[in-house]
Amino acid sequence: MAREFQGPKGTRDFYPRDMALRRHIEAAWRHSSIVHGFEEIDGPTFEHLDLYTVKSGDGIVSELFSFRRAGGEDDYALRPEFTPTLARMVAAKAGGLPHPIKWFAIPSHFRAERPQRGRLREFLQWNVDLLGIDGAQAEIEVLSTAIVALERLGLSPSDVRVKLSHRGVVSAALRSLGVREDRMADAFTLLDRRDKLDAAAFSARAAEMGLGAGGLEAFARVARARFPAASAVQAMREATGCTDADAAPIAAVLDGLKAAGLDAWCDVDLGIVRGLAYYTGSVFEVHEASGGERAVAGGGRYDGLVEMFGGPRTPAVGLGMGDVVLALVLRDRGKLPADEGESLLPRPDAFFISAEGDSSDRMLPGLLASLRRGGLHVRQSYKSTRNVGKLLADAGKCRARKAVILGAELADGMVQVKDLDRNEQVVVALHDLAQHLRGE
Amino acid sequence: MAREFQGPKGTRDFYPRDMALRRHIEAAWRHSSIVHGFEEIDGPTFEHLDLYTVKSGDGIVSELFSFRRAGGEDDYALRPEFTPTLARMVAAKAGGLPHPIKWFAIPSHFRAERPQRGRLREFLQWNVDLLGIDGAQAEIEVLSTAIVALERLGLSPSDVRVKLSHRGVVSAALRSLGVREDRMADAFTLLDRRDKLDAAAFSARAAEMGLGAGGLEAFARVARARFPAASAVQAMREATGCTDADAAPIAAVLDGLKAAGLDAWCDVDLGIVRGLAYYTGSVFEVHEASGGERAVAGGGRYDGLVEMFGGPRTPAVGLGMGDVVLALVLRDRGKLPADEGESLLPRPDAFFISAEGDSSDRMLPGLLASLRRGGLHVRQSYKSTRNVGKLLADAGKCRARKAVILGAELADGMVQVKDLDRNEQVVVALHDLAQHLRGE
Repeated sequence: MAREFQGPKGTRDFYPRDMALRRHIEAAWRHSSIVHGFEEIDGPTFEHLDLYTVKSGDGIVSELFSFRRAGGEDDYALRPEFTPTLARMVAAKAGGLPHPIKWFAIPSHFRAERPQRGRLREFLQWNVDLLGIDGAQAEIEVLSTAIVALERLGLSPSDVRVKLSHRGVVSAALRSLGVREDRMADAFTLLDRRDKLDAAAFSARAAEMGLGAGGLEAFARVARARFPAASAVQAMREATGCTDADAAPIAAVLDGLKAAGLDAWCDVDLGIVRGLAYYTGSVFEVHEASGGERAVAGGGRYDGLVEMFGGPRTPAVGLGMGDVVLALVLRDRGKLPADEGESLLPRPDAFFISAEGDSSDRMLPGLLASLRRGGLHVRQSYKSTRNVGKLLADAGKCRARKAVILGAELADGMVQVKDLDRNEQVVVALHDLAQHLRGE
Repeated sequence: MAREFQGPKGTRDFYPRDMALRRHIEAAWRHSSIVHGFEEIDGPTFEHLDLYTVKSGDGIVSELFSFRRAGGEDDYALRPEFTPTLARMVAAKAGGLPHPIKWFAIPSHFRAERPQRGRLREFLQWNVDLLGIDGAQAEIEVLSTAIVALERLGLSPSDVRVKLSHRGVVSAALRSLGVREDRMADAFTLLDRRDKLDAAAFSARAAEMGLGAGGLEAFARVARARFPAASAVQAMREATGCTDADAAPIAAVLDGLKAAGLDAWCDVDLGIVRGLAYYTGSVFEVHEASGGERAVAGGGRYDGLVEMFGGPRTPAVGLGMGDVVLALVLRDRGKLPADEGESLLPRPDAFFISAEGDSSDRMLPGLLASLRRGGLHVRQSYKSTRNVGKLLADAGKCRARKAVILGAELADGMVQVKDLDRNEQVVVALHDLAQHLRGE
C-alpha cells in the first residue's frame, strides 16, 4: 500500500521554518499597507475563465490552470493575478465604496509556466491598489507603501531600485524618432522584449516601424535611458525631446517621493514597459540593484480596467510584489537569518520542567492550561527523563525565554524560574507566575 | 465592451469588513495554536489527484475540482482537505522532524458540492495535528487548542459542545448487539447516516446486519447515547456493556480535559462516527449547543495514514475547523460585532487635518511619511475642504484614535492633537509627535 508521493512541480511545502520566513515577508507587507491606510481584501482562488480572457485575450489560456467541475458547464481558472478580481469587486459595489478606495491583498497566484529561478507555479503576491485619484498622489502612496515594506525587511536603496517610466514620455520619444501612431503598440512590445532578442532581430523589427540606423540607435538609447530621480526630469527631456507637459506626470511623482524622503530609492528608466496591455500612464518595477534577478515588483496606472469589468470610469494605480524573487533578493543581500528561519519562529514564553515526580506531574497539565488560557505560550518536555540539565538544554533549543522548574519548592507553592536570555534564576510564587512570565 | 462579472458560485469576495471578520477568526485560531506550542505550516493549493484517491477511493473525484495543465499529463485537484498533504509532508521528512510533531495550518479548501447553508465551494479550515504520541495526551492537547480558540472568540460551554466518541467503545457495543465483525464497517456507516435515513430504511439496513427488533432498539440507544463528561465512563459502560479496557482511552481523554479545566465543554456522544474512513480510535466533533448547524469542527486519531503515504508508522491526532459554520455560530450567539466587522478593522493612530493652507499642505506629506516609517498608522483627508469640523467628523468615521490639526501653531513648530476617545485636546511639539501618538 505504501507509496511515495510528491507535491506538484513548481509548488512548495512550507515546513515551520519556511512558513516563518513567509510570515516574516507577509508581516512587512501587511504592516506597510496598514500604516499607509490600506485595508485588506481577498477574493476567490479561482474565477470564471472569461474574467481573464476578456482583458488578456484567449492567448492567456495556455498560461492558466483552467478546469471544469465534473458535470458542470462553467470554465474556471486558478487566478494568475489579482487585478481582474479587484476590478470585478470594485465594479460590483462601485457606488457603495469609500473614496478613494485603498485596498491590499496577499493571495496565492498560479501560472502554468515552466518553473525556473524566481518563477514558480504557485506563489504569493502582495497587491496594493489605490482607486479614485487622477493625480500623482496615487502613484506616490502606492510606491511609498512598497518602499517602506522593503525598508522594513532590511533593504536599502543600495540593494533595490524602484524604476519609473511613463507611457506618455516614451510615446513622445518614439514619435519624435518617426514611429508611426499605428505602430506605437508594436514599438512598446519591442521595447519590452529588447533583452530577449538579439541585435539583428531587434534591428529588423525596428526597421519595420520605419526606424533607420540613426533612429535605431536613438531608440536603443531611450530603451537604456536611466537617470537618478534628482536630475531625471531635465535628463529625460534632453534624451527624448519630450515636452514639459509630457514630463509633468513623472515629475510630480518624483516630487512627491522626494517630499516623503524616498527619492533615493528611485530612478527613471524609460526601458520599463510592463508586458500587460492595460497600463495607461505610469509604469514601474522594483529590481535588485545589480539587475541580476527578475523584477521584485511591478505595476502602474490602469485607468480603464474597472470600466472594462462593468463599473464606472475609475482612475487606478496598482502594484504587485511576489514572494519568490523577493526572498531570493533578501537572501542574496544577507537580509534573512542565517538559520533558515529558525529564529523567526514564535518564541515560547516558558518551557516547563517537572522535576519533583508525581506531585509535579499531577500539577503540570492544569498549570499549563491555565497559563495558555491567559495568553502565554508555554511548552513542556515530552521525554521521560528527569535530568534537569538535559531538559534545560531542550528549553534552550526551542528558544524559550524562561524555564520553569517544578521542584522541591512546590511544597511551599513556589517554582524556580530561570531567565534563559540573562542566565538568572529566581523563585516565584505560583500565584504570581503568569504575571512574572508576562514581564509585568 | 463593459460586461458584468460575478465570482464563481459558492465562493466569497472579502471586502474590508468581511476580511476583518475572517482575520478575527484566524487570529483566535493562530493564537491558540501558538500558545499550545504548535508551529504553522502550509502546502500547495492543489495536489496530484491520486493523493486524494489513494485514501478515499475514486468515489471522491466527483467532489473535487480536478484539472490538467493544457498540454500536461498530470491530473491535479484543488485540496478538499489538508490531512493528505500533511501526511505526505511528514512521510517525506519523517526522520528529520522533531518528536512529537505539532503543526497547524489555515489554508483554503475546495469542494465541488452544491453550496448551501454552512457549506461553500471554497472555505478556510484550521488544521491542528499532533503526531508521534500514542496516548491520550495527543487528544487532550488538540482538543484543548480547539476549546481555547473557541473561548477566545467569546464562546462558552453553553454555546458549543465538544462531542467525543471512540471506535473501540462503539465496536464493543455493536459486537455485543450481535453485529458480525465483517459487517462492522457497514454498521459504522449506518450509524453515521442515522439522521439521513427514515426509520424504515434504517431498520431494513440494520436487519441486514443481523439486528432484530431488540437489537435495533439497543443500536438506536447507542446512537443517541450522550453523557456529560463527569459521569460518562460509568454511563458508557452501562449503556454499551463495554469493558474497562474499552473505556480506558476515552476515560483518559476525559481525565486530561478535567485536569485542564475544560471538561465542562465536553460530552460523550457515541453517535459521533465521522464519515472519513481513516480514523482508528478517538473521534470528535464540535457542535453548536442546540445542534442546529452542521459540525463546527471534526477530527480524531488516524494512526495509519502517514504509513499509507510512504512514511513510518506514526500515531496521529488531528482536528479541522472550518470558518463558514463557525461564523454562523458566532453570529447566532451574538459573538460578532453588530457593525458587520467595521470595529474589527485596524484603527488609525491619527488622522491629519491640514488647516493652515499652503504651509501645512507642503509639510504634510513628509510628516506622514516619517510617521509611517516609524510604524504609525496615520491617514489624511482626500477632500479639498478646510472645514475642520467636517474633517474631524471624517476622523471619527474611520475610528482614528487621535486627530492632528496642522494650524496656526505650526509657525512655532507645534500642532493640536485631539484625543477622539476622551475628547481632550492638547498642543504638542512636532518633534514630540511620534512619541505622543505612540502613547509614550
